[in-house]
Formats: sequence, C-alpha cells, structure tokens
Amino acid sequence: MSTLKVPQSVPSVADDCEQLRKAFAGWGTNEGLIISILAHRNNAQRKLIRETYAQTHGEDLLKALEKELTSDFERLVRLWTLDSTERDATLAHEATQKWTASNKVLVEIACTRSSVQLFSARKAYHALYMKSLEEDVAQHTTGDFRKLLLPLVSSYRYEGDEVNLTLAKTEAKLLHDKITKKAYNDDDLIRIFATRSRAQINATLNHYKDEFGKDINKDLKTDPKDEFLALIRATVKCLIHPEKYFEKVLRLAINGRGTDEGSLTRVVATRAEVDLKIIADEYQRRNSVPLERAVVKDTTGDYEKMLVALLGHE
Amino acid sequence: MSTLKVPQSVPSVADDCEQLRKAFAGWGTNEGLIISILAHRNNAQRKLIRETYAQTHGEDLLKALEKELTSDFERLVRLWTLDSTERDATLAHEATQKWTASNKVLVEIACTRSSVQLFSARKAYHALYMKSLEEDVAQHTTGDFRKLLLPLVSSYRYEGDEVNLTLAKTEAKLLHDKITKKAYNDDDLIRIFATRSRAQINATLNHYKDEFGKDINKDLKTDPKDEFLALIRATVKCLIHPEKYFEKVLRLAINGRGTDEGSLTRVVATRAEVDLKIIADEYQRRNSVPLERAVVKDTTGDYEKMLVALLGHE
Repeated sequence: MSTLKVPQSVPSVADDCEQLRKAFAGWGTNEGLIISILAHRNNAQRKLIRETYAQTHGEDLLKALEKELTSDFERLVRLWTLDSTERDATLAHEATQKWTASNKVLVEIACTRSSVQLFSARKAYHALYMKSLEEDVAQHTTGDFRKLLLPLVSSYRYEGDEVNLTLAKTEAKLLHDKITKKAYNDDDLIRIFATRSRAQINATLNHYKDEFGKDINKDLKTDPKDEFLALIRATVKCLIHPEKYFEKVLRLAINGRGTDEGSLTRVVATRAEVDLKIIADEYQRRNSVPLERAVVKDTTGDYEKMLVALLGHE
Repeated sequence: MSTLKVPQSVPSVADDCEQLRKAFAGWGTNEGLIISILAHRNNAQRKLIRETYAQTHGEDLLKALEKELTSDFERLVRLWTLDSTERDATLAHEATQKWTASNKVLVEIACTRSSVQLFSARKAYHALYMKSLEEDVAQHTTGDFRKLLLPLVSSYRYEGDEVNLTLAKTEAKLLHDKITKKAYNDDDLIRIFATRSRAQINATLNHYKDEFGKDINKDLKTDPKDEFLALIRATVKCLIHPEKYFEKVLRLAINGRGTDEGSLTRVVATRAEVDLKIIADEYQRRNSVPLERAVVKDTTGDYEKMLVALLGHE
C-alpha cells in the first residue's frame, strides 16, 4: 500500500511545469511549491511532467532540480522524480561503482522488485550506462559476494504460486546441512536463493522451521560481523518479508547515532508508491512510535517536509 | 541472411488452415502438401496459422502434426512451426532435462540470440514450464559447467558498438594468464565471456591475437577430450563467429558415421529464417560441396524434402 497522496483534481501537466518553472525563477527557490507539486504526483504523472518540461523549457527537469536544490533534499527530490526503473538503474549503478561488502542495495533491488521490474531496470541500465548491470556487478564485486550478487541481479524468477512440497523438503534439508557445516557460500545454497520462485522459497523456509525448529535467519546469525552472512540474511528477508527488511533499514537509519540520510531517502523514494504504508505500520509495531513522528524528530527543513509529504501526511 | 522462400502471393490464413486440414484427413497424410505450406511461411505467418487453426478446428496444430507425422520429419516440422521464442524455450528445456556435459544447446541459445530474444525465450519458459530457465539450469548442471552456463543463460548483454580498448588490453592479458595456467574455470575468465558485450569481447580477442600470436580458441584446445574446454570454445565461437559454429555442427552431423539428425534438424529449424544462407556458404567453403547436396546425400523421404525446402531450394 502506497502512502502517496495525489489530489482528486490534478492541474494540467502544462500548469505543473509552469509552476515548477516559477519555483526556480529569480533569487532563491520556492521549495514549498516544488514539494506541493512533485510529492503529490504518481510515477506516470511525474514522467509526463519531466517530458513536457524538457519540451517546453529545453532543459531536463532533473538538471534544473540539481541546480536549484542542495544536499539531502536535492537527492530525495531527484530520486523521487525519476521514473522508477531509471531510479533502480541509478541506485544499482551507484552501488556497483562504489561497492563495499556492507552495501545491500543490489540485493534490495534484485529481491524486492518483481521480475519484470528488475528486467526493466536492466534495460534502463543499458540505455543510461552503455553496459549491462551484471557486467558491472561482476567486475566490481569479488569472491563470495560476486557468487551471490551476480545470479541475483541476473535473475528472472518465476512468479506463479505453485509449490513443489517434495522439493521444499529436500532443499530445506540441504540448506540445514550446509548451514550446520557453516558452508554459507555453498553452490546449492546460493542456487536456491538466487533462482527459486518466492513461493517455492517460502515453502522451503516454512518446512525448515517446522523440521529444524528455528527461523533460517536465526541460524544464519552465528557471526554478526560476517558481512557475507548479513547479505544472505538480507536476501532471504527481501524475498520473503520485504516490509520487515525495509522497517529495519529505516530503524537503523533513524535510531543510530546521527541519521543515515542516504538509507532514509532511498527507502522513502523507492517505496512511497509501493508499500510504504505497510512498512510504516511495521515500524510503529516494532518501535512503538509512528514512523512520521520519528522522521520529524530526526530531520529538518525542506528535507523533512518532503519526507513527511511522501509519508502521506495530509 | 535467411534461406526461407515465401511465395509472392501467399494464400489467406483460412485457406492455409483448410489445406492443412485436408492434408491430415482420411487414410494416410499428404506430407507434400504440409511441406508446400509450412516450409514457405515466415514466423508471423506460421503463428497466425497456428492460432487460426486452433480457433477453427479446436485443436492445436502442433498436436495434429504430432499425430500425423513421425520420426525426424515430425520433429523438424514441429520445431519449425513453433514460434521462435517458444522453440528456444522448448530446446532449452530439453537440454536441461537430459543434460550431459557434451550438450552445447544452452550455450548456443544463450550466445547466438540477441539479448531481447534470449529474454523472450526466458519469458516463454515461465509460461510453458512454470519455472525459470536459470532455475532448471542451476538444478540440472553441476560444478564448472554450472558456473559457466548459469550466467550465460541469465545474461542480458549490452549490444552497443562502443569498445573500451584499455579494458580490452587488460582483459586479453588476464585471459592469457589464466589460460597459460590452465585455469579454465577461473572466475574472471568466465565473467568476461558471460557478461561483456560482443563488441567488447571481439576487441579483447583481437588484442589477444595481436599480442600473443594465436587465436584464443587455439590456446583453448590443449585437451580435445575436455568437455568443459569444448564448452568454452563453443561460447567464444557462438558469440563471435556464429556462422562458423553452426557450420561445424552441420559438418559433424553430416560427415560423421551415420547422420546426427537431432543437430541437423535443430540448426536448420532455428537458423533458416536467420542466417542459414551464410552458414551454407561457410559450409561450402569449408567442405567443397554445397550444403544442400550434402543434405540430400545423407537424408531421405519427407525429412529430406522438408530440409531442402527450408534450405531455400526453389
């Protein structure tokens, strides 16, 4: 469930572009006007605004935003304004170019998007960077990380509901055997998470819990400092409980020492139109405080206003 | 260049379906009539015939062909009649279900199709088999073969012409180092062939030849019995010289002891509408006999007639 609030009667695209142009004009920028427009238009509407703005004013709206805005507010507005597939391609590109073992953005994009969305992001990656996403992932990652990330970003998972229970049992046992032996980088363990459908993995993990008495992610927590293990846990969580994965990213971003604006911006920009309502409910359940209140407490100025608008504040 | 001959004035789809129905009716089957229609319709026309036939006669044309025809002729007509993406999905499925180390069909499909065609075959695989191609490849192959085949069938290569010459030099050296050490299953060697664009790989292999004096496939021929090495050579050839790869498949199919109808059928059915003319020219250059004459000498009956028709005999 989306948190996006689009007014019942939306101004014409031409009007929106005109207002944005005004917000940029003269000394100073009218940030409130920008928020009142862009934070309340859906993906298709923003795409049309960007196209029309380029035609009318001969400038890419994203470039104009880059010139007029600064810092976290700028990044949030720009990421949000991007078409969702281009946004995914952009985030994935950033992740490959400055990849670190703790970076979970590639897993996030590979495992929380639909198969078609992931493929669309790969297409957008060709167009934007003149190479393939998997090419950059393979080049910029190494060892076990590459072994996991390459098939994840290249996957086109089957999305039907059908489940093979015999297979679920076999593979639950296989996973348990490998995990017991701490063979976390085992070929078959990676194969299962990288290629099976969500429905099938879910059945396998249900059987795992029934048969061996623990959530698999508990068994995968033997060493909290092992970043490869953390990446496998993120994979499992993104595939099966994306709302819990994103809740935790927000929790760590907000509750840590200082705020991790990068993660906060990314989650709000990528999920507002998808399932941010569910993530916010999960956040409140887990932290006993509404997500919006926590965000307001931790952020300021136009950045705060844009976040709150995307969180669906009336 | 295609060898397909479509008549200047093609009968209506309804007429084609009617004639096919007649060819199946009564005692015996009119194989000549079937060839005269199906071997002279392009992919779009055959697709329409199959749809119209199902609507008109309440039966899948492929099922009817299966009932009426037999043996190599049946397989050729059925493979040819299939839409090209469904055909690729079918061939890939056969290859995963009865996979052997010497089977090169997966490499062939992954490396001689365009990125969009390969992706379309993966989509068709979902629809036909309710799972993903990479899922089956990962499950049914093992070890080094899996390490190579999984990224190959999952790839969505960039198809632009741009080449990075610095990268080509670095990676040519890297390939040479690994090959000199006989590290054929090296992560980076596989990464290069599985993810780089054709243009980039071509540049790398040109530099390889200039710098180290030999074609890479010569250096990859240290052990003619090593099936993994043979698969890497097939990968390189399919990516860079598909016409030479297919010429060799035909040569071995025709010139071996007995005929390998499986390979002959597959190459003719999959390439007739693509580049069979180029492959046939390559065959004649390499064997000093026209492909059509070689095929006629090695095959008989309706199978021969259908092959000759697809080879473009007037």
